[in-house]
Amino acid sequence: MKRIGMLTSGGDCQALNAAMRGVVKSLTNAEQNVEIYGFLDGYKGLIYGNFRMLTRRDFSGILTKGGTILGSSRTPFKLMREPDENGLDKVEAMKQNYYKLKLDCLVILGGNGTHKTANLLREEGLNVITLPKTIDNDLWGTDMTFGFQSAVNIATEAIDCIHTTAASHGRVFIVEVMGHKVGFLTLNAGIAGGADIILIPEIPYDIDKVVDAIEERHSKGSKFTILAVAEGAISKEDAKLSKKELKEKMKNNPYPSVSYEVADQIKKRTSYDVRVTVPGHTQRGGSPCPYDRVFASRLGSEAGKLILEGKYGFMVGIKNREIIRVPLEEVAGKLKTVAPDASIVQEAKMLGISFGD
Amino acid sequence: MKRIGMLTSGGDCQALNAAMRGVVKSLTNAEQNVEIYGFLDGYKGLIYGNFRMLTRRDFSGILTKGGTILGSSRTPFKLMREPDENGLDKVEAMKQNYYKLKLDCLVILGGNGTHKTANLLREEGLNVITLPKTIDNDLWGTDMTFGFQSAVNIATEAIDCIHTTAASHGRVFIVEVMGHKVGFLTLNAGIAGGADIILIPEIPYDIDKVVDAIEERHSKGSKFTILAVAEGAISKEDAKLSKKELKEKMKNNPYPSVSYEVADQIKKRTSYDVRVTVPGHTQRGGSPCPYDRVFASRLGSEAGKLILEGKYGFMVGIKNREIIRVPLEEVAGKLKTVAPDASIVQEAKMLGISFGD
Amino acid sequence: MKRIGMLTSGGDCQALNAAMRGVVKSLTNAEQNVEIYGFLDGYKGLIYGNFRMLTRRDFSGILTKGGTILGSSRTPFKLMREPDENGLDKVEAMKQNYYKLKLDCLVILGGNGTHKTANLLREEGLNVITLPKTIDNDLWGTDMTFGFQSAVNIATEAIDCIHTTAASHGRVFIVEVMGHKVGFLTLNAGIAGGADIILIPEIPYDIDKVVDAIEERHSKGSKFTILAVAEGAISKEDAKLSKKELKEKMKNNPYPSVSYEVADQIKKRTSYDVRVTVPGHTQRGGSPCPYDRVFASRLGSEAGKLILEGKYGFMVGIKNREIIRVPLEEVAGKLKTVAPDASIVQEAKMLGISFGD
Amino acid sequence: MKRIGMLTSGGDCQALNAAMRGVVKSLTNAEQNVEIYGFLDGYKGLIYGNFRMLTRRDFSGILTKGGTILGSSRTPFKLMREPDENGLDKVEAMKQNYYKLKLDCLVILGGNGTHKTANLLREEGLNVITLPKTIDNDLWGTDMTFGFQSAVNIATEAIDCIHTTAASHGRVFIVEVMGHKVGFLTLNAGIAGGADIILIPEIPYDIDKVVDAIEERHSKGSKFTILAVAEGAISKEDAKLSKKELKEKMKNNPYPSVSYEVADQIKKRTSYDVRVTVPGHTQRGGSPCPYDRVFASRLGSEAGKLILEGKYGFMVGIKNREIIRVPLEEVAGKLKTVAPDASIVQEAKMLGISFGD
Repeated sequence: MKRIGMLTSGGDCQALNAAMRGVVKSLTNAEQNVEIYGFLDGYKGLIYGNFRMLTRRDFSGILTKGGTILGSSRTPFKLMREPDENGLDKVEAMKQNYYKLKLDCLVILGGNGTHKTANLLREEGLNVITLPKTIDNDLWGTDMTFGFQSAVNIATEAIDCIHTTAASHGRVFIVEVMGHKVGFLTLNAGIAGGADIILIPEIPYDIDKVVDAIEERHSKGSKFTILAVAEGAISKEDAKLSKKELKEKMKNNPYPSVSYEVADQIKKRTSYDVRVTVPGHTQRGGSPCPYDRVFASRLGSEAGKLILEGKYGFMVGIKNREIIRVPLEEVAGKLKTVAPDASIVQEAKMLGISFGD
Repeated sequence: MKRIGMLTSGGDCQALNAAMRGVVKSLTNAEQNVEIYGFLDGYKGLIYGNFRMLTRRDFSGILTKGGTILGSSRTPFKLMREPDENGLDKVEAMKQNYYKLKLDCLVILGGNGTHKTANLLREEGLNVITLPKTIDNDLWGTDMTFGFQSAVNIATEAIDCIHTTAASHGRVFIVEVMGHKVGFLTLNAGIAGGADIILIPEIPYDIDKVVDAIEERHSKGSKFTILAVAEGAISKEDAKLSKKELKEKMKNNPYPSVSYEVADQIKKRTSYDVRVTVPGHTQRGGSPCPYDRVFASRLGSEAGKLILEGKYGFMVGIKNREIIRVPLEEVAGKLKTVAPDASIVQEAKMLGISFGD
Repeated sequence: MKRIGMLTSGGDCQALNAAMRGVVKSLTNAEQNVEIYGFLDGYKGLIYGNFRMLTRRDFSGILTKGGTILGSSRTPFKLMREPDENGLDKVEAMKQNYYKLKLDCLVILGGNGTHKTANLLREEGLNVITLPKTIDNDLWGTDMTFGFQSAVNIATEAIDCIHTTAASHGRVFIVEVMGHKVGFLTLNAGIAGGADIILIPEIPYDIDKVVDAIEERHSKGSKFTILAVAEGAISKEDAKLSKKELKEKMKNNPYPSVSYEVADQIKKRTSYDVRVTVPGHTQRGGSPCPYDRVFASRLGSEAGKLILEGKYGFMVGIKNREIIRVPLEEVAGKLKTVAPDASIVQEAKMLGISFGD
Repeated sequence: MKRIGMLTSGGDCQALNAAMRGVVKSLTNAEQNVEIYGFLDGYKGLIYGNFRMLTRRDFSGILTKGGTILGSSRTPFKLMREPDENGLDKVEAMKQNYYKLKLDCLVILGGNGTHKTANLLREEGLNVITLPKTIDNDLWGTDMTFGFQSAVNIATEAIDCIHTTAASHGRVFIVEVMGHKVGFLTLNAGIAGGADIILIPEIPYDIDKVVDAIEERHSKGSKFTILAVAEGAISKEDAKLSKKELKEKMKNNPYPSVSYEVADQIKKRTSYDVRVTVPGHTQRGGSPCPYDRVFASRLGSEAGKLILEGKYGFMVGIKNREIIRVPLEEVAGKLKTVAPDASIVQEAKMLGISFGD
């Protein structure tokens, strides 16, 4: 008999359902008595004891379904230690619900913030297993996170669509790609979409170099240029500022996002017609791609195995194409980023892609 | 022997290449001697004599290709009669190039503005045949324009993606759909994507009714609401203003587009987390859908037939599933819009979709 | 208070769920008390009283879902009048269940065979409304059936994929497309996919003309040829046979389907490498395309309206882009086919497509 | 100054063009003088001196294009040493053309057979670099081959489509997936598509176990079962036969492929309605998926680097997400297969997937 709590936290992404299905299928195939408590809307559900009892049937047919059947919310880690507006100690509340339901384990699906809280709960003595969910692929300790490849596909499709219209009108087009503070998503979608210039947070850009790259293309006869710009892209100047200085500067920033700033600077320096497209939240949605479905199913399967073995305190990840178990304390709080001299960056540069550096 | 000039004008869209391929295939299948002059970047190419000689081979393999192999540009009709910055009379220049090349006919692919200029050239004595290209489906005289269904598909996919993320987070999500001053695209993508509220220019919205619709959904247990908002959507108040008053008001408008204004007003009136997504130019790009490929091919085929018959001055369109020929003078300058009491609107309302009216 | 029975019969297709959702949404929006009895697996459910009570919630989230939540089966009309293996009079059984449940109306979604049975039930005095479901688009009385455009998309994608591989290897490729005895699906997918030769039942083919068309392409430098062949395509010789003679001939037919026969004949007459691909049942599956979602929703909405008005005995269809009501007795038993001289066929021929005639 | 010969050999697949574009872009970005000789239709072009001079422009816009702009053919390695029908020594002919054109290097894109010939040419003293192309992912020395993930996507889509129709009709459905003698493609598409039973060559199946798995599903209330069957799947009995015995047995085999045999055996042992779908060559076609575009571009980039460094005799592959160089002699003639106890297989079994073993 196993009693498992499950929750999805942070921004949603593709294959959350596939991963949960994997956990539940592997558990219920091996063990007759499994009780699944699905906490609603992320940690909130655990804090306030808001849950649904789920059966194997609830997980049938959701392999291909986007979003999360449990709902999600962003409960920031920083405030987790602070009492809520009614004075409730949230960490204690989570522990109480865990013990009240006599759970054997919590399965938590989430990204960086989620993992910090998950590790906190582990330190508080709860049995925790986590699965690495994020379209950003910025989780330390795993080669890949699920949602990433699906998001790459959507961002690439956007660039593909923009390609035909940019070429037809001889325009400079900026496609802003998600990814928070890291550039994996933009880098991959940019290469896949045939972007000419890729700007990512890890490689601060020099706007003059960006303009040079555009001018060079046009001088060689190309009538249009596509830029894939990460939402977290940053200029060389801004990268030199302290956090505080940057925050101060941002206060007076008239641009909705960095792409509009880049667009404006290109317009000021050239005569090109520059347009910005922001696919935005579409990048998190829709049916997971086959790669993510397989990957998330494998992770879920391994999580089930861990639970059956009674081994807790791990994030299940992937390394060299094999599913691995990483101690949670090694993962929590660490960010995986694109190394500015990573081989994929060098290969992209050889293809003629400019990073504005 | 036929000498045909061809150009694509206005915003690009899907199936422009498919349509041109249709014209050229039907001509070259029937007639050995056909010379195709492809004018580059819309009317500009015709004005400044910038063209490429094209062969059947240039049109091979482009059935599925987005954009236009000829390039396009927006040369506003209003200024067509005015000389350019060097004092050149643009209409005269077009006529001279037409006669210099001894063209039998100009095949012009474009939307509303394009058709006004095409009709002007017809009035000036040139042989003109036009094909109705626009994702907006706002051309009078034809049931459908090519590009429209492909754009519906892309906008619907965006709503599909947003659906899963909106449901996961319990948010109010606005997807802004293209369409200029008409609502066909938003209406169809909205119904196809399962939007709960659809705002289109032809049915000015009352923000209180919009908020009511959201509140009613939430009162019935729905945690999220999706709005499909046309880029040309307008409030009841603004719809009452004169053009001049509206222009004056827009000067101080802090919102990048109407969706942001709607979002802001919902936020002010409710406690919901409201997000905006703007798929933008992606809606014009990418490979045409099978419907548009068939439709554009049929139009192109009929255009070829007209040329072989030596009949000019028509837009080729579709009526009741049959390809038709509409005299250009009947089409030019007329806008097709969604009738506020159209049966599709009534059917949508029966499905529970609110139009905020 | 309304008590509605609902069933889906015949081969499944895309947008069945969307259509049922439309019916239920329009009914439950207008009327508080609606009871929905969903009969399982087509007429079987009605015969044997096998049903589920459904609520509005069951129809939520199924707009984009392929298949049918009610299941389907092919219960041939011809045998409907005959008793089942236990001596049960099936028509009487259906009537009894109808009256026992005090139904106001049966909503029946299906194709040609389904409509015959539906009309039979109408003649027996039951209130019936039908919706035209089939990927074949062969229902008389409506311009279009739902499922058709989605199937065109899948068949076209198959041809698209085959195109690149055919071109790379210089092969003759046959893609066999569904459609039973009619050619709408093959005709549209063939034009959309850029097929060079299209064989449909309505235009019997002469294999020598087919080979001529291939040879002519090769003589002009094309290294490959794509044929879109309807599963019901027939040679001129076979078309002359009586039904009985054809049946006799088919007994010794060594080919799994007509495409293999065509392939074999091309191989015998030429030196080309000929391959056959049969996408088969994939053409009925997957998420409905936006066109079908809108269309099926509109049909469902109108069906709901009919029920609210207490008007029965109609198939809801579409004519000239408007939703219409067609008396069932006018529809049942009639097949819609491609006219061999239809304008779309002539347009296709102008594009250089051979029909082997 | 570099003179590079290039050819694509064997069955075509997605991202061949993307890979060649990568090679040419990286070379021409670094070096002004590069001459590209594109040999047509695989080794045939090299043998008979059939080539086109290609420029950077030929590789523009082909990142997303399926197939190969050079054409391909299957010239079996076994016969490479034998003279052709005119007595021509093919290996000598290739060497002569290589030296006559003063090539610095041959870039060869292909699968297993192609690599044997490439290694032969290397042994004969030619400078050779190869890129691992195959949807089968059966090349030794690299974690992944390009084309594989795109083919997984297409095969998965087919299973997705079949899923809805199988569920609607309560059928047993077999989807036959490509892959020659290895099961990677079927295994991944099967897991991604939610197949219940997966049969691959590396794990010979026992038909009774297959039937047991179907019966167990039905006994638990599932009305349908999906099997993903590799085209190379083999029964336990047949796996015990010697090559000669198997060949003998196959002579009298009435089934077009193994799926039909499995279908027949299930029908004989059960009362289920069993259907077979064979997506076939569609799995090789269409636009490469973003994963393959990035991967192939990276491989091409590294191939360009090797040429610039003057290092030859390598296959460029990927290991642990990094691009690597593998000596050709280590690769040629070795097949990579699915280990029957691979962790992905075990994970799939935990999810409840039967392999019929």
